[in-house]
Amino acid sequence: MTHPLIGKLAIFGVGLIGGSFALALREAGAVGEVVGVGRSPENLRAALELRAIDRIASDNADALDHADLVLLAMPVGQMGAVMANIAPHLQAGTVVTDAGSTKQDVVALAREFLPKHLESFVPGHPIAGAEHSGARAARADLYRGRNVVLTPLPENTPAALEKVGAAWRACGANVAHTTPANHDSVFAAVSHLPHLLAFALVDDIAAKANAEEMFHHAASGFRDFTRIAASSPEMWRDICLANRDALLGELDAYQAQLTRLRSMLEKRDGTGLEQVFDSASQARRKWAVDKGL
Amino acid sequence: MTHPLIGKLAIFGVGLIGGSFALALREAGAVGEVVGVGRSPENLRAALELRAIDRIASDNADALDHADLVLLAMPVGQMGAVMANIAPHLQAGTVVTDAGSTKQDVVALAREFLPKHLESFVPGHPIAGAEHSGARAARADLYRGRNVVLTPLPENTPAALEKVGAAWRACGANVAHTTPANHDSVFAAVSHLPHLLAFALVDDIAAKANAEEMFHHAASGFRDFTRIAASSPEMWRDICLANRDALLGELDAYQAQLTRLRSMLEKRDGTGLEQVFDSASQARRKWAVDKGL
Repeated sequence: MTHPLIGKLAIFGVGLIGGSFALALREAGAVGEVVGVGRSPENLRAALELRAIDRIASDNADALDHADLVLLAMPVGQMGAVMANIAPHLQAGTVVTDAGSTKQDVVALAREFLPKHLESFVPGHPIAGAEHSGARAARADLYRGRNVVLTPLPENTPAALEKVGAAWRACGANVAHTTPANHDSVFAAVSHLPHLLAFALVDDIAAKANAEEMFHHAASGFRDFTRIAASSPEMWRDICLANRDALLGELDAYQAQLTRLRSMLEKRDGTGLEQVFDSASQARRKWAVDKGL
Repeated sequence: MTHPLIGKLAIFGVGLIGGSFALALREAGAVGEVVGVGRSPENLRAALELRAIDRIASDNADALDHADLVLLAMPVGQMGAVMANIAPHLQAGTVVTDAGSTKQDVVALAREFLPKHLESFVPGHPIAGAEHSGARAARADLYRGRNVVLTPLPENTPAALEKVGAAWRACGANVAHTTPANHDSVFAAVSHLPHLLAFALVDDIAAKANAEEMFHHAASGFRDFTRIAASSPEMWRDICLANRDALLGELDAYQAQLTRLRSMLEKRDGTGLEQVFDSASQARRKWAVDKGL
């Protein structure tokens, strides 16, 4: 019998993200035992039924005993408390990673709560949709062909970094590295700002006197533009606050862009509008081709 | 042999919209002969091959001779010129409609160029996606279950209004009526503004020094939010200019909303942000349920 990549995996927060990680590793034959920890007994039972986890840990010490890899996949708002709770039980050979959507804040928490374990704490962000949540939404193929961004710490050992990268590759993901600051800057622009804009538009329309009529006429363009406005309000509140500075910068740049477009529209500057629309349309079409969409 | 709803249909602009209208009516057995008029001989030949049209009209007089229904489905920018050209050939029994995305401007053009035909000119807007264009994109089921908004003129005869409504219902569409001004106000909010916002975001990112890296990390949320940014720059320039006043109003309301969110973010007002996100998320989820998505 060959030795799996990961002997024992402990997942804190067995939802869509954590559950799919476990299912994918299991399908790849890359994990021995999976233990789950979480706040909701009902969700943990669902994870057991779906065989995402082999058992529910009785406590943190049990979960972490001889663990090869730990995935922190709970909401970022709970990350600090969980780190503080696991710190006393973390063993020398255990590598820890996370799945938070922002990285500078997670790194700051790790420096505060896991100061003795920085060699083996590799921050990560799997780029996978989270419209649905909970263990029942988990699937083995969630990460196939998706990107996972790791933001290694200077303290990380090559072995810890390699273990986390290998685990994600076993899930079928493409693994990239960058700095926490660059990660947060990039995702402020391509993810966090669009979420804020979509929430803003739907709330804007919902507050109108004729909201019902407007929603009645909204069609496929609106459907796609606002799909992310159905996302979890708590999760996105936390992401916005965690990435506040980068998001404020992107929002200011975007407001300046809207002010520019408003001025063109007011002056009936069709040439100016068309130039912006054309640049966007070409970039969006090229993006779709590059992504194979 | 039963008499079809429409004996002779003349389509000006046999693209996605016009071609699909013809295919749907033909499939429903609701049309006798379909003649096509357009600027592109190649596109008209494609429409012929696809049997969207029975023949290419030799000129406007030929197209309009004994026509029961005329659909104007060319870009709104050409609408005035086409109206001026067809006016001398329009016969008394012919009903005319259009498929423009804005209605007050089309009504103004009709009042200018078709003043003797206002009884029988019924402005319309089929709400159907237009990511792809041209006759080759046409399909018989494009309008099935979709909404078509008619904005009747006070001059319209009941018979003209009924003919246009019956034609769209034969295509499988749901037909609603409103005023041109209300139409333009509603679509400024649920369609035109989202297009402007999506174009603005993609252009914003495309102009960054690290645009390539950003696009690399953009995932499914970005994909859906920006799908409409791949739309035709010319068409959307025309729509924005045609619906300038309503769009400026929506843009101002949206900028005020963004300024409010920015202030919450700056003050780290998580409760305020969550309230807006929660209102949007609930409205978006309810919308999806109501639409059966």
